[in-house]
Amino acid sequence: MGNRDTEEKRTEIAELGEFGLIRELTAPFTVKNKETVLGAGDDAAVLLPCPSCEEYTLLTTDLLLEGIHFDLTYFPLKHLGYKAVVIGCSDIYAMNGTPLQMTLSIGVSAKFSVEQLQEVYEGVRAACDDYGIDLVGGDTSASLTGLTLSVTVTGKVDRQKIVYRSGAKLHDLICITGDLGAAYMGLHLLEREKRALKGVKDPHPHFEGYEYLLRRQLKPSARREVIEELASADIVPTAMIDLSDGLASDLLHICKQSHCGARIYLDRLPIARETYQLAEELHADPVVAALNGGDDHELLFTVPLSLQEQIMHVGGIEVIGHITAKETGVALTTPDGSDIPITAQGHTETPKG
Amino acid sequence: MGNRDTEEKRTEIAELGEFGLIRELTAPFTVKNKETVLGAGDDAAVLLPCPSCEEYTLLTTDLLLEGIHFDLTYFPLKHLGYKAVVIGCSDIYAMNGTPLQMTLSIGVSAKFSVEQLQEVYEGVRAACDDYGIDLVGGDTSASLTGLTLSVTVTGKVDRQKIVYRSGAKLHDLICITGDLGAAYMGLHLLEREKRALKGVKDPHPHFEGYEYLLRRQLKPSARREVIEELASADIVPTAMIDLSDGLASDLLHICKQSHCGARIYLDRLPIARETYQLAEELHADPVVAALNGGDDHELLFTVPLSLQEQIMHVGGIEVIGHITAKETGVALTTPDGSDIPITAQGHTETPKG
Repeated sequence: MGNRDTEEKRTEIAELGEFGLIRELTAPFTVKNKETVLGAGDDAAVLLPCPSCEEYTLLTTDLLLEGIHFDLTYFPLKHLGYKAVVIGCSDIYAMNGTPLQMTLSIGVSAKFSVEQLQEVYEGVRAACDDYGIDLVGGDTSASLTGLTLSVTVTGKVDRQKIVYRSGAKLHDLICITGDLGAAYMGLHLLEREKRALKGVKDPHPHFEGYEYLLRRQLKPSARREVIEELASADIVPTAMIDLSDGLASDLLHICKQSHCGARIYLDRLPIARETYQLAEELHADPVVAALNGGDDHELLFTVPLSLQEQIMHVGGIEVIGHITAKETGVALTTPDGSDIPITAQGHTETPKG
Repeated sequence: MGNRDTEEKRTEIAELGEFGLIRELTAPFTVKNKETVLGAGDDAAVLLPCPSCEEYTLLTTDLLLEGIHFDLTYFPLKHLGYKAVVIGCSDIYAMNGTPLQMTLSIGVSAKFSVEQLQEVYEGVRAACDDYGIDLVGGDTSASLTGLTLSVTVTGKVDRQKIVYRSGAKLHDLICITGDLGAAYMGLHLLEREKRALKGVKDPHPHFEGYEYLLRRQLKPSARREVIEELASADIVPTAMIDLSDGLASDLLHICKQSHCGARIYLDRLPIARETYQLAEELHADPVVAALNGGDDHELLFTVPLSLQEQIMHVGGIEVIGHITAKETGVALTTPDGSDIPITAQGHTETPKG
């Protein structure tokens, strides 16, 4: 009947990687409508509802699947609902925008109760309140196995102040909010305790001293306050991206789309004390966590060198390097002055919180 | 760790039904932004990007899960991609709007190849071309089992011409596009052949004479041409809804939201010859298929009685009844003049194509 003869040629999805796959699949599509300013390729799509609008409409969507993006052994349903909204809002902030509305579709198997779904929605509501957005649609549907969340977030941004990944210029400063690798280490901690306590009745996981890492994984924030502070200081970044795939991968996105290189400095990378501490305990490298750990939902952005003084006065931001010519590539400079090239590597989907 | 203590009280999702569940979950949410004109409760959310816009932005989202919404034993991947877009576009047309953009997120297990995903995207592209919309985002992600599609479609509609479910008035004519129950009977045919050919190598299903029913299930259309013809004729319906849950359920939505009753006539229901024929073969009632079969993606709408003459000149539309006072309820009148009350019944999720 339907799909029997379709497997004559078989390319494994893993061969292409996440970004290669999306490129391959979407290459044949062309834009038809004048209302579409930018389709795929940035943190959110950019739409112009009418020619006289002073603001663009932003649109971003994310799919969260049980067993891939979250593990309900340790991920509280309320936090899951909260995080799903944060992920979408972070994409809107990464365009220098303001999130406004969201839709949520949930696929849910019979093992879940109404009360459990209410917990998910409680988290969604808390996030809607924290980020000032309206839930405007979506639905729930049966599923054969597990929990699926699909979140779409819309937003707005002044047409003169939109920030793409593609606007970084030579000598621009590379800035980052918050710290790196904590969400990733939080995930490792949760996974460790899950393994250690497997089959144990009434388990008591050991999280003492690492509450910060857990919070970064289980209840992340989107950087609303940074976007607002930049606006107050009248600073418009030249390029920006949400750090969801890890600094290395996301910096490469900016450099590729801005046709430039970058130099970042190891001793400038903001890494929390707890991240160092747990990395030591687990015999892991905190710098690898900082570079390749996903889920931070910090903002990586560039500003003109002339704004160095001003950017220092905005709280919670570190300058970690600068934009270079494309030919010099993208590299991490260690304290002894040697350069480690940063090259593409797909975002690892497992384990993920 | 996470969700152990959350099951103290347990209400089964089935106890509330699809619509009751959504009401329960979304009741605590309130609208905060002036840009949000209407949240949940119609075919699409209604947004006003800026006060000077002459058009509203529309937003609708759907989640399609393997084993619940489609069965890949007989559902070709290309058609699945096509149908996912049609479902979203139909929601936009049901607001009297024009679809413009879409995002697609896919969750896919390792059993799928790149070539199979390309088939899904081919169908999406064909639908984007047929309905004039742009693919502007989304992603693919690993999944543990099966295929998940999440589609969000945006659109626009003149602020003066938007049509809600809530606008039907006493004596309005109830109109319907196309015919009813064919998609549902197509699904039954596919399920019958699936059962009959289970375990058969090189199966040859018997579909002769029922190609129309298959097409209605596997490659449905959204009623773009009707919306365009209504616009040409300068007719703005008073209320409208996409027929996705079956005529009975969707007519009840209009009556509930418009605070009115309705009388529809059995001998006016448009039912295709093939629908009758297969129903007879399967000893099923074609009227039940017409009233309760989902997936038709026709438009159900109301127009003022004064437009009776004009609406007759628009092709592909049947007038099946009229709006009555709320107190008279919603009923189907049979040819012998007796009234059968139409009461709420949840949309059945299984079997579904």
